[in-house]
Amino acid sequence: MDTSTALPPDEITTIFYVGHHETDRTENVSYDVLSQAQGLGYDFLTVPITTPAFHTSVVSLVKDYKQRISQSDSRELPLPLIPPLTPQDSTLTPDDSNSLRVAVVSPWIDLGSSDPVIAHISRQVLNLEVAYAAFCGVSNVLVYAPTEEADAVGYGRAVQEALGLGPYVQLHVLLPMSGELETDYPYGEHLSELAAPPDFDADEDDSTAKDEYDVWATWDTIRSLCSYSQKLCLALEVQRQLPCLDLQCRWYSEPVRLLVFPRTTFIRNAKGYPVLSKPHQQLISRFARLRFPPWMLLSDVGTLLGAVDIPARTSPEPTPAEATSKTKEKPKDPVPHLRYLRHLQQSQPPRPPIERFGQGYQDYLQSPLQPLTDNLESVTYEVFERDPVKYEWYERAIAVALKDLRETVEDARPIVVAVAGAGRGPLVTRALQASESTGVAIDCWAVEKNPNAYVLLQRRNATDPLWSNSVHVVKSDMRHWPGPSNPNGEAGKVDILISELLGSFADNELSPECLDGVQHILHPSHGISIPQSYSAHLTPIATPRIHSDLLLRSGGGGEKWDIPYVVLLHQYDYLSLSPASSPESRTPNVQQAWSFTHPTSPQTLTHARLRAGGGAGAPGSVGGDGSNEHNSRSCRISFTCAKQGVCHGLAGYFETVLYSSARTGEKVELSTNPVTMESKSQDMISWFPIFFPLKTPVYVPKGGEMMVHMWRQTDDRSVWYEWVVEVYDTAGGKRRKVGMSEMGTSRKNACLM
Amino acid sequence: MDTSTALPPDEITTIFYVGHHETDRTENVSYDVLSQAQGLGYDFLTVPITTPAFHTSVVSLVKDYKQRISQSDSRELPLPLIPPLTPQDSTLTPDDSNSLRVAVVSPWIDLGSSDPVIAHISRQVLNLEVAYAAFCGVSNVLVYAPTEEADAVGYGRAVQEALGLGPYVQLHVLLPMSGELETDYPYGEHLSELAAPPDFDADEDDSTAKDEYDVWATWDTIRSLCSYSQKLCLALEVQRQLPCLDLQCRWYSEPVRLLVFPRTTFIRNAKGYPVLSKPHQQLISRFARLRFPPWMLLSDVGTLLGAVDIPARTSPEPTPAEATSKTKEKPKDPVPHLRYLRHLQQSQPPRPPIERFGQGYQDYLQSPLQPLTDNLESVTYEVFERDPVKYEWYERAIAVALKDLRETVEDARPIVVAVAGAGRGPLVTRALQASESTGVAIDCWAVEKNPNAYVLLQRRNATDPLWSNSVHVVKSDMRHWPGPSNPNGEAGKVDILISELLGSFADNELSPECLDGVQHILHPSHGISIPQSYSAHLTPIATPRIHSDLLLRSGGGGEKWDIPYVVLLHQYDYLSLSPASSPESRTPNVQQAWSFTHPTSPQTLTHARLRAGGGAGAPGSVGGDGSNEHNSRSCRISFTCAKQGVCHGLAGYFETVLYSSARTGEKVELSTNPVTMESKSQDMISWFPIFFPLKTPVYVPKGGEMMVHMWRQTDDRSVWYEWVVEVYDTAGGKRRKVGMSEMGTSRKNACLM
Repeated sequence: MDTSTALPPDEITTIFYVGHHETDRTENVSYDVLSQAQGLGYDFLTVPITTPAFHTSVVSLVKDYKQRISQSDSRELPLPLIPPLTPQDSTLTPDDSNSLRVAVVSPWIDLGSSDPVIAHISRQVLNLEVAYAAFCGVSNVLVYAPTEEADAVGYGRAVQEALGLGPYVQLHVLLPMSGELETDYPYGEHLSELAAPPDFDADEDDSTAKDEYDVWATWDTIRSLCSYSQKLCLALEVQRQLPCLDLQCRWYSEPVRLLVFPRTTFIRNAKGYPVLSKPHQQLISRFARLRFPPWMLLSDVGTLLGAVDIPARTSPEPTPAEATSKTKEKPKDPVPHLRYLRHLQQSQPPRPPIERFGQGYQDYLQSPLQPLTDNLESVTYEVFERDPVKYEWYERAIAVALKDLRETVEDARPIVVAVAGAGRGPLVTRALQASESTGVAIDCWAVEKNPNAYVLLQRRNATDPLWSNSVHVVKSDMRHWPGPSNPNGEAGKVDILISELLGSFADNELSPECLDGVQHILHPSHGISIPQSYSAHLTPIATPRIHSDLLLRSGGGGEKWDIPYVVLLHQYDYLSLSPASSPESRTPNVQQAWSFTHPTSPQTLTHARLRAGGGAGAPGSVGGDGSNEHNSRSCRISFTCAKQGVCHGLAGYFETVLYSSARTGEKVELSTNPVTMESKSQDMISWFPIFFPLKTPVYVPKGGEMMVHMWRQTDDRSVWYEWVVEVYDTAGGKRRKVGMSEMGTSRKNACLM
Repeated sequence: MDTSTALPPDEITTIFYVGHHETDRTENVSYDVLSQAQGLGYDFLTVPITTPAFHTSVVSLVKDYKQRISQSDSRELPLPLIPPLTPQDSTLTPDDSNSLRVAVVSPWIDLGSSDPVIAHISRQVLNLEVAYAAFCGVSNVLVYAPTEEADAVGYGRAVQEALGLGPYVQLHVLLPMSGELETDYPYGEHLSELAAPPDFDADEDDSTAKDEYDVWATWDTIRSLCSYSQKLCLALEVQRQLPCLDLQCRWYSEPVRLLVFPRTTFIRNAKGYPVLSKPHQQLISRFARLRFPPWMLLSDVGTLLGAVDIPARTSPEPTPAEATSKTKEKPKDPVPHLRYLRHLQQSQPPRPPIERFGQGYQDYLQSPLQPLTDNLESVTYEVFERDPVKYEWYERAIAVALKDLRETVEDARPIVVAVAGAGRGPLVTRALQASESTGVAIDCWAVEKNPNAYVLLQRRNATDPLWSNSVHVVKSDMRHWPGPSNPNGEAGKVDILISELLGSFADNELSPECLDGVQHILHPSHGISIPQSYSAHLTPIATPRIHSDLLLRSGGGGEKWDIPYVVLLHQYDYLSLSPASSPESRTPNVQQAWSFTHPTSPQTLTHARLRAGGGAGAPGSVGGDGSNEHNSRSCRISFTCAKQGVCHGLAGYFETVLYSSARTGEKVELSTNPVTMESKSQDMISWFPIFFPLKTPVYVPKGGEMMVHMWRQTDDRSVWYEWVVEVYDTAGGKRRKVGMSEMGTSRKNACLM
């Protein structure tokens, strides 16, 4: 099988949706201007909701009030109230073309001001403007970042209230990745300049040192107050100086709907054209691969003057001479920044296979398969068989095992190979190919419980030239198969038992239980199980997108939080990095939870059978249990988190040794663990990670430690997981508990044996 | 009115329910023994669930396994399984008298062992024993504390699983208040002695210093893992050396169902009898006043030998001579410890008035009254009128105000007094009495909107000799009353407006809005409002009982977390103490949220009316609002928490100045604020505190800071509150955020204007 053709080519066209923002713009733009901007290649424009006249009247309202309270007791004066908008206050109007407009809330307000008058006035401006924009049918509204001194809780509460003003309104909070905004605001007087000086708070000033994550922490407060509302998103300003990669990745995991590029972020190339640095390009490429990539907003890259005729306060009419001289000049590119973004759009790198394969499935939560209780459909098998790596590696493992056994098995009889859970037969084909390539003759058995797949297996045996009726096809649950028999009906044993029962978390589809059940047919002294061993791995992650999706799901009873989901994790961030990680590599700290090895020791299985019969350890007693006790596991793993963050759950992966030859040292492995996947089974697409959610996200302080407890539980009829996270603060030499999650348990969604 | 007779005497009989625990007891006790123990005064006995034989067989099972794994690869051996119980393993049996037995889980297990074999065996013992006790109909089961090295999460998970083994089973976790248990266990070998040495964890050992709160922290982990289950409670061992008062109060707030007194806790008095120290007595008294006081368990205070005939391993039959000599001795008290507890029971101090008044209401959540939209029933008024302090203080305030006005009002006309919301008339009576005592003549008006109370007011006017038809009774909503008129029908103004509209959080029953509405009838230059001002106060508290009750309430949608409840807070702990607090006084850190003053400035009311009409500040515009904006409030208060804890919500109180005389300096105040209540209005019973719950409790580390944000919001039709708590870690000189609560909002349960 040619793996290069197994996957469709990267047919996903990257499209950048690019807008134009001008802080100087004081009025709405006409439909003609919009059309011309589109002609230049822009997809949308920002427009202010209110006019400079409105600004002036609010500022004088505040000043007037401030003067009056300075003359009397402030208790005596009601807080000032902004009158309803007049036509002079706003040029916005309901219009079909408003989907092409992003409305900008007045940037001169200060929602988190410590001055109650300023905060109160600012909230009124926000509410008036958002409500009017929503009324006009503008659904995307941009709100400027809180000022540096602002109270994030006060700001967040105001935004939370504004979210309720229109059912379709989406609020974009404009925040810099770190530090202060480059994006300016146009008017002279910011309300914060009118605020009373805050009460001096000695405690706070002493201990609150600046931190690169301060803006992110503000955002975390805002979105928490807004209960992860999907109507709240981020307009993230990308500055020329990018923050550390850790912080870039953190922002990547947040609901960024607009990437804002101020003029100052661009650099000039040799020819003098504006371009972006390599790290900026990489950042854009990463965002562009999201299921819902953010739009881009060019900020103050030129007024479009000369290109399109946008009214602006500062644009005097050109004199006739000027107009003439302009037309005589060699026509300059009026939109070089936009042209550059379009160039980037054309030259996006191809996506990795797992992303092409999983397109549309990013961050989409699925319940794990229950292959033991459900019969799969052909199309599900077909998806599995499309993997370019997995079956190739199985074939390699079988070949190595065959060569080993040829040395071990004394007489020259064919090696007995059985595929347990053969499905539509891909592993049978691989076994036959391995036999051919190594020249080791095999006697091949295919065992399948699914009656529908059984039909296909028989047909393939009759029609596939490789199979040519040489395969023994058996319809049976592997746990009840009595084993191979020779033509004389004599029972024999299997030399190599091949299975593909692993789930996203290794044992979560009950591979240990199934292989225990079929082990009785394996040759007791030299029998080989492929896979030989497997292990479950995990790491804590931040994934606001999934948390927000889960909050929206029905099921207030809370069961939705007690399910481990199979999910192509995409828009997330690792909270703990490996000690070996470099700032560039960002290797996650993925740790092993537990492992299983096959075949299980005969002693263990004997005990298990005794227990199932009720008599283990207590001859004569009946009704005991614990027959699957040997497959229970637990772990307690510590993860150090260098940066502050919020943990929304645990990402789970697996590794497996398909076969490791003691004779030659050859080792064939598969891995979905992001740390080892590349070296062990690059481009494998068969498994998405697993995700164990936390009902209440836990905050981890900078330098904190997460202690993850996890259990694989069994009651002999089913298997389930339980998980809980404790948080410790280890900074300053003292280790103190600072938080704990609720315990998640999939007992009610257990895997049935 | 004689306030001393206003309250019923303390008729609540204190009953101690006392049990006998003997760590040496190896078997169940017979019904005869139980009866004899009851004859001695005991209410219940503890009995072991399993026998020493069971212990021996489990220990040898573990030893055998340990030996076998030392000889082979541990992966190869299934974990040992305890066989089902045999008659030799337990002497417990189903019996009607089992309600008098508390079953004790084997104290030699180690549920939180780091050795998976020991932990696994221990969980099996726990499950076998709890299930068997539940089967036998014993509903109270005692489980020994985790060992000092144990993993609290492992222990908690095991307990959580055991809680599911019987629908009526109650698990009592035996914990010392601090440090290690005094209560011994009887058998030689504890499973922890068989455990493999734990992997040395350098990090943990370095930084984990002992803390007096360690046991409490363990308990917090256990009950959090058990989701505050009401089937899980505490058997708290009271040691001779009590921990600091802070920690005592913390334990008091937890679900203690058993107070365990080991023999060593008792001291000898001058006569040689066992007694408890004063602090111990105080601790008992406090617990005894709980709505569900804990039982008491005397541990190893004597085997009852000689008193009742309990079979015991160590009791040889007495020789005839011994038997004779015993009978000749002066009969000694066989149960001096029990007798002492009974003595304490008899001599419990009387309860404070609020507790007598609120008996049965402790920690019972009520929704606040909506007197503006609902008409109260007579019995509700009757409850209000029973307060021994409130009306007395009103009378004092009226008297001072009358004397002041007599000086101010120039002509000798009677002072016009109006009671707004007169109810059944208690304040009318007080006004008339004040007039009598001061000799200042009044013209008294009673305004009431409730048509049913109006009937009573008229009847009282006709029949009460004090009233003697002198009172003008008006049926009207006070906001629409045009004011008093003289016999000629000429409109006049009120000199003193008396109201009792305050709720538990001062303004939560819309006193500000009502008094604004009636202010138009108040004399503009010298009119007095009683109360003159009031303020809302709050402090964060730990109250596991209320949190657990709320979890059990129906309403998965979460609305139950968005209601401020009126509740007689009882079993709770303050998280933040006043800087002025001493270790003995434990003065809580209650801070003012905001305040209101009456009369409101005429300017403010003029503005409000303009706004209601839609025209404030914008002549000619229509439809504006914000007429109640001047009654919105917000605050942001920092609370420092010296000790680690969990915050379940905010307790709210109020203070009010009924009247303060500028002339004489006299000031009459009411307060429910625990810091000032005693000095301002001791024994006032009319108001319970208010409680703002947090949906997800927030953990506060030792020395942490809680930043409480609260808002009083209004939309001109209703008033509601919003609240959110941030947690900062301020230890080590650096201030870092470590957690934040969700935002609570009573918008959907707002008070309607």
